[in-house]
Amino acid sequence: MTQQIEYWFTAGSTYNYLTAQRIGQACGQAGVPLVLKPFYLGDIFKEAGFWPFHPDTARTRYMWHDIARSASQMGLSPTLPAPYPAPQTPLANRVAFLADAQGVGLDWLIAAYVEWFHAGHLAGEDANLRPSLKAVGLDPDEIIAAAQEPATEAALQTLTQEARDKGIFGAPSFWVDGELFWGNDRLEAAIAHATK
Amino acid sequence: MTQQIEYWFTAGSTYNYLTAQRIGQACGQAGVPLVLKPFYLGDIFKEAGFWPFHPDTARTRYMWHDIARSASQMGLSPTLPAPYPAPQTPLANRVAFLADAQGVGLDWLIAAYVEWFHAGHLAGEDANLRPSLKAVGLDPDEIIAAAQEPATEAALQTLTQEARDKGIFGAPSFWVDGELFWGNDRLEAAIAHATK
Repeated sequence: MTQQIEYWFTAGSTYNYLTAQRIGQACGQAGVPLVLKPFYLGDIFKEAGFWPFHPDTARTRYMWHDIARSASQMGLSPTLPAPYPAPQTPLANRVAFLADAQGVGLDWLIAAYVEWFHAGHLAGEDANLRPSLKAVGLDPDEIIAAAQEPATEAALQTLTQEARDKGIFGAPSFWVDGELFWGNDRLEAAIAHATK
Repeated sequence: MTQQIEYWFTAGSTYNYLTAQRIGQACGQAGVPLVLKPFYLGDIFKEAGFWPFHPDTARTRYMWHDIARSASQMGLSPTLPAPYPAPQTPLANRVAFLADAQGVGLDWLIAAYVEWFHAGHLAGEDANLRPSLKAVGLDPDEIIAAAQEPATEAALQTLTQEARDKGIFGAPSFWVDGELFWGNDRLEAAIAHATK
């Protein structure tokens, strides 16, 4: 029986730029239902005392080069390195949750990454949120106001606790029938597990 | 023109267990020359203030689960989690360098990982070095003595500086014609780049 894929992400992840662009088509072709799970990965990083990409390190320089290489193979031409990190990522994750509740979560996420990686507007900033929300037919004022509501924050806290409970420590991650797959490169393995 | 692959590794890397087992066949089938480059990744981690796998973290638990899953797909049955980290890794890397100079670098590396991941003897410890060296026809006393020589240490320091200069920050890494690929999962991309 085909299982669903839970797509655990933060809108502030760099590699998730690649995943957002391809996960819809990949799951669609495989007939795998896709469930969006935005969460506060930054909280989990803080708890672990870990931050993956500090400025001007070999790891971070490689990360941008690697994303550029993968994007090129996908026919994408982002302007890299993009500004990073994105301090307003928690707000972006709450917006992702609200956009998903309106049925346009993935479309919005892609639009937000285009604003960030192609136009240089950081995730969660007004210059990113307004055009990306408009692009998917949502009212920016309405969604941004709802993103400040305690109920929205509580929903993200619940998701983040669920991520902790599942042992999620990075993003994007894929959870399929009790198995965890970490990283954009493991999307195919997650889909294979969902359809086996 | 087919390019060679430089295989940058530390004998103390966990994911390198998988790479050691498959890189010889993968390069052989593709007709890609393979050059072994052991180096002191631990020094580079220290300089970066970074250690990837602390005990009892979600990241480390996932790492062992992920290696077990990949090993199973390769028909391997290691006993995991293996003891980790391996404090004698620098010695193991000097032994790798010397074994490679004798033409059995990769064979020794595989034997050392079998000792570590299947028999529970940490990389670089006597209980690992002696059987793994014997398994590839080398004299343990002779190689272990040579591994303490200043010239061997100097060779590793030179390799480690070359790794720094190439922006290498993790292992296994593959360097092909000026392009860096990090991680066991990227071996296929490295081979594709070498044969394009």
